Amino acid sequence: MRIIVDAFGGDNAPREILLGCAQAMEPLGIDVALAGDKDQLLACAKELGLEESFRKMEVLHASQTLTMEDEPSSILKEKAASSMAVGMRALAQGKGDAFASAGNSGALTVGATMLVKRMKGVKRVAFAPVLPTTKTPFMVCDGGANVVCRADMLLQFGLMGSAYMENVMGVQAPRVGLVNVGTESHKGDDLRQEAYALLKSCPGLNFVGNVEPRDIPYGACDVAVADGFTGNTVLKLYEGTALAMMGMVKDIFQKNVKNKLAAALIYGDLQGLKKTMDYNSYGGAPILGAAKPVFKMHGNAKAKAVQSALKLVRDCTQSGYVEAITQALAN
Amino acid sequence: MRIIVDAFGGDNAPREILLGCAQAMEPLGIDVALAGDKDQLLACAKELGLEESFRKMEVLHASQTLTMEDEPSSILKEKAASSMAVGMRALAQGKGDAFASAGNSGALTVGATMLVKRMKGVKRVAFAPVLPTTKTPFMVCDGGANVVCRADMLLQFGLMGSAYMENVMGVQAPRVGLVNVGTESHKGDDLRQEAYALLKSCPGLNFVGNVEPRDIPYGACDVAVADGFTGNTVLKLYEGTALAMMGMVKDIFQKNVKNKLAAALIYGDLQGLKKTMDYNSYGGAPILGAAKPVFKMHGNAKAKAVQSALKLVRDCTQSGYVEAITQALAN
Repeated sequence: MRIIVDAFGGDNAPREILLGCAQAMEPLGIDVALAGDKDQLLACAKELGLEESFRKMEVLHASQTLTMEDEPSSILKEKAASSMAVGMRALAQGKGDAFASAGNSGALTVGATMLVKRMKGVKRVAFAPVLPTTKTPFMVCDGGANVVCRADMLLQFGLMGSAYMENVMGVQAPRVGLVNVGTESHKGDDLRQEAYALLKSCPGLNFVGNVEPRDIPYGACDVAVADGFTGNTVLKLYEGTALAMMGMVKDIFQKNVKNKLAAALIYGDLQGLKKTMDYNSYGGAPILGAAKPVFKMHGNAKAKAVQSALKLVRDCTQSGYVEAITQALAN
Repeated sequence: MRIIVDAFGGDNAPREILLGCAQAMEPLGIDVALAGDKDQLLACAKELGLEESFRKMEVLHASQTLTMEDEPSSILKEKAASSMAVGMRALAQGKGDAFASAGNSGALTVGATMLVKRMKGVKRVAFAPVLPTTKTPFMVCDGGANVVCRADMLLQFGLMGSAYMENVMGVQAPRVGLVNVGTESHKGDDLRQEAYALLKSCPGLNFVGNVEPRDIPYGACDVAVADGFTGNTVLKLYEGTALAMMGMVKDIFQKNVKNKLAAALIYGDLQGLKKTMDYNSYGGAPILGAAKPVFKMHGNAKAKAVQSALKLVRDCTQSGYVEAITQALAN
């Protein structure tokens, strides 16, 4: 399997991306094709003492870099020669099996739609991160690709998310819930009421009804269906609250000698909790609905997170989730 | 000051409501008028041994109870004789200075609008709970009263929230933020972009721009302006995530003897954290925009939470926040 990686996407590019790829290739049994400026990559590889690994990678030369400040649509025009654009076109042309980037999410969504193209019948691609709960992990779909949505889009998000959770995460009959302000079927605005009706009457979907945000951290559903605005709010508030709470617990443990002793006693368990709630451990998130596997890595991913992401990309791609989604939408 | 209390609202009514009121009157220096069925209240008072306190309370007899299953609009028709409706009409008629209920939020919103009436110029009343962060508390406005909003409503939510935080919570020039999927001014849907423009150009408002949900737990703003759907999502996910995290920490501490020892060492600090993140300690939330003080108590409030709520109601009412909001909207 060959994974095309945007070497110039994210806060720590190209250094940590290159390092992560070099460390991942052999253990994961994957080939890597790096999209980015050839000379800069070579210099970076030398600096890191990674010449040998680097020689095993293909380089897809790209003279530009698309930044967080660039407009998403710039990937089609002003930044058509960027590492992200070059990598995605290469994926579309069959020069690799999957594409991963830690760069601009908006541009990645546009690229997935316009360069990689959508699966047949898909209205909009969705950003679909998987997050931890106190029980089993769940997917937010859409986590922010589409700020404004129609009800038929939400139905597809549910179908795509369900197919992914079943094929990649091994969840039997994934519980699909609609994020809403109450559990009763009449709750929410027109969008929610229409989406509820569509989801409920869809054969083959295990729709569990409306899910209140308060129950999500307790594992109320396997797929949380939302418009991109709501999904992004859920995603970011969830991350922020978990991090803030962990920070407050950490502060308590560092307050004085007595507390430090307590921390030492439960160090292992606390690390376990931290790991459970660490969204980075999930490595990355798929852009569902693209005709080929496209993944977003966390913007501040370091080498270790890049490795985790590449493992996820490999496993997902091997699972054949794109075909599974195509099948689910066709039914 | 006389506070009218819905004796039959919430999961633990009338028992815990009556108990909370009885315990609060003398320490808080308030009079209480109970809205509810006279005979049932008398029987409950006898059962609790509270006849003496009960004699000091006025009873506003109401033959019906409005439940969580009732339609919000039922407060105007089928349930016009409910304790909630009777209490709110009494407030409107000047038979008390404020009204508090732990009952159906939707009905409370309708009652605030139609029975108590809105302040002059207010488009919609808003449910406005104050929540803790790692730093200073913040208000969500609207927390769920209006699922669908226009931009001019969001502007008013910002103005009302700001006046409340300044007058009741003593925050100087409260930082008003718009909950959005990114900090840049062009982010979000049409509603967010229009609201941004209105909030930014409003004199006398300390608008700090868009606030990403991830930064809210760290105290990014004093007033988080949102449509009721988004605000309710923030409110419920925030509560749920904080509770889930506290539960996971608690599980760790109860895992074995070693961990229990660690817990004993930091018991006081952990209780402090729990208290910091406990939304119940804030007692209740105002319905902003009503012409007189109307408060929602937590649905599962017990006597202690009722006491906290009545203290909040007293302090808020004394602060003259209704007049402060009227002033802020007039400017």
